[in-house]
Amino acid sequence: MKAGPDCYLCIRKLILRTSSLSTDDEKVLRRSRKEALDLLRKEFSDETVPAQLSTKLLRFLKYATGCPNPFEEIKRQEIDFAKKLVRDIRKPPQDFRSLVEYSAIGNTLDFFKKPESLLETVGRFPGFAKDEISKVAGKLSSVKRILFLADNAGECFFDIPLVSFLSKRAEVTYVVKGSAVQNDITYDDLTYAGLANRIGRVISTGDDAVGIDIKTASKELLQELIFSDLIIAKGMGNYETLSELPACGRTFHILMAKCRPVASSLQTNINSYIAILR
Amino acid sequence: MKAGPDCYLCIRKLILRTSSLSTDDEKVLRRSRKEALDLLRKEFSDETVPAQLSTKLLRFLKYATGCPNPFEEIKRQEIDFAKKLVRDIRKPPQDFRSLVEYSAIGNTLDFFKKPESLLETVGRFPGFAKDEISKVAGKLSSVKRILFLADNAGECFFDIPLVSFLSKRAEVTYVVKGSAVQNDITYDDLTYAGLANRIGRVISTGDDAVGIDIKTASKELLQELIFSDLIIAKGMGNYETLSELPACGRTFHILMAKCRPVASSLQTNINSYIAILR
Repeated sequence: MKAGPDCYLCIRKLILRTSSLSTDDEKVLRRSRKEALDLLRKEFSDETVPAQLSTKLLRFLKYATGCPNPFEEIKRQEIDFAKKLVRDIRKPPQDFRSLVEYSAIGNTLDFFKKPESLLETVGRFPGFAKDEISKVAGKLSSVKRILFLADNAGECFFDIPLVSFLSKRAEVTYVVKGSAVQNDITYDDLTYAGLANRIGRVISTGDDAVGIDIKTASKELLQELIFSDLIIAKGMGNYETLSELPACGRTFHILMAKCRPVASSLQTNINSYIAILR
Repeated sequence: MKAGPDCYLCIRKLILRTSSLSTDDEKVLRRSRKEALDLLRKEFSDETVPAQLSTKLLRFLKYATGCPNPFEEIKRQEIDFAKKLVRDIRKPPQDFRSLVEYSAIGNTLDFFKKPESLLETVGRFPGFAKDEISKVAGKLSSVKRILFLADNAGECFFDIPLVSFLSKRAEVTYVVKGSAVQNDITYDDLTYAGLANRIGRVISTGDDAVGIDIKTASKELLQELIFSDLIIAKGMGNYETLSELPACGRTFHILMAKCRPVASSLQTNINSYIAILR
């Protein structure tokens, strides 16, 4: 997916937020921000894949501020919040559609929003604006290997019932980030959430890219991307990056379209929930 | 593709032929053959992917005989023969279908056959028993990146007109083997053929597997397999191995079905020519 006009302001906001979280040193903050904003101005064009430019800028900020994991505290809060929330709410019925819905609700979490926004969705899910769940359900009986590309840290609690359901039918591999990027889940976060040994096979992308970057991803992930019959890709970052690759009819995107460019690329309204097979 | 009953005898023949070409030392020959045949008996089952077991046995023979490139001389002869042949025969018309045919004729070459068998095909091509060329032609206008998985050493002369045609429309990458396996083409062979600088971008699989083995292939090849809109896969080894991966509708297999198990997997007759999109 290529950038829309809103992407510039959004990536700018990402730079401001990430740099603030990365350092208390005013001088470092000012300089790293300035250089990151210069880089953004220089590199942004209609051909930008927003997730790829964000990856570049987030890596620059790690280097310039010396902070490898600026969202650490936010991720822990998000995990604590989601853990408590799923304990209190009614569990979804154990059919595929309900479990996809539940997993999609988890994608409401976003590091630009307060985790409480999730509360509004739980219990009154508005349905999917694009819905190809039955198409995917129809493929399940012939699927042998499923790759599950995770997204936000707290979201894992909403994925685990779907992963458990699928694990009874196929080999499922849950994919976390290799190192910190935004509020995306890493193996450390999964361990903090208490799920590292409860979600089956887990591998990492091997890098710290927003979404999937096949240039820097681990060989293990590339092998799984080639070998899996079904790829479940949560969230916008995975949509933005994987939609640049050829469509093979085996990538099941589950996400909330939280911004105009993604919504427009998906020909839907902002804040819609999407479940499409690409 | 899984093994049929004929595969056992064929792999046995491969062991006998390869070991003969690998050493003149009677003792080494006897021992390496015996151990390879023991391994074949032990490992062969209905679940065998014939190309994968061949890879394993060919690697064993390299180790046991100390010969890294037993088919070197045969490949050079094959290249010399094919080079001379294409110089003498009428060039194919420059339309996609004719160029695919020409490339398929090149796949007649086989290290179990005399190169002269190619002569019988040139000029009186029997047509494709399975023909999805027009389906592929219809996709060409939207294709940006093409991966061309080469096969036998002499075959490159029959591929080059097709590669040139496609290079005018998309970025084409020609893939040779990373190191010697059977009579498959390597970068050294391509150089010997005089085509290394005439066929555009060339990469190697990074290994010495029959067909494609995603476990041992280079990261570069894995990236290209994910990123390419169209994968042209020549020959049986590529069919045997890639048909074990999920079908994505972007792999164009061009081959002669030289044995019963491959022909039967493709629901065709032995020695048919095949051009299918999988």
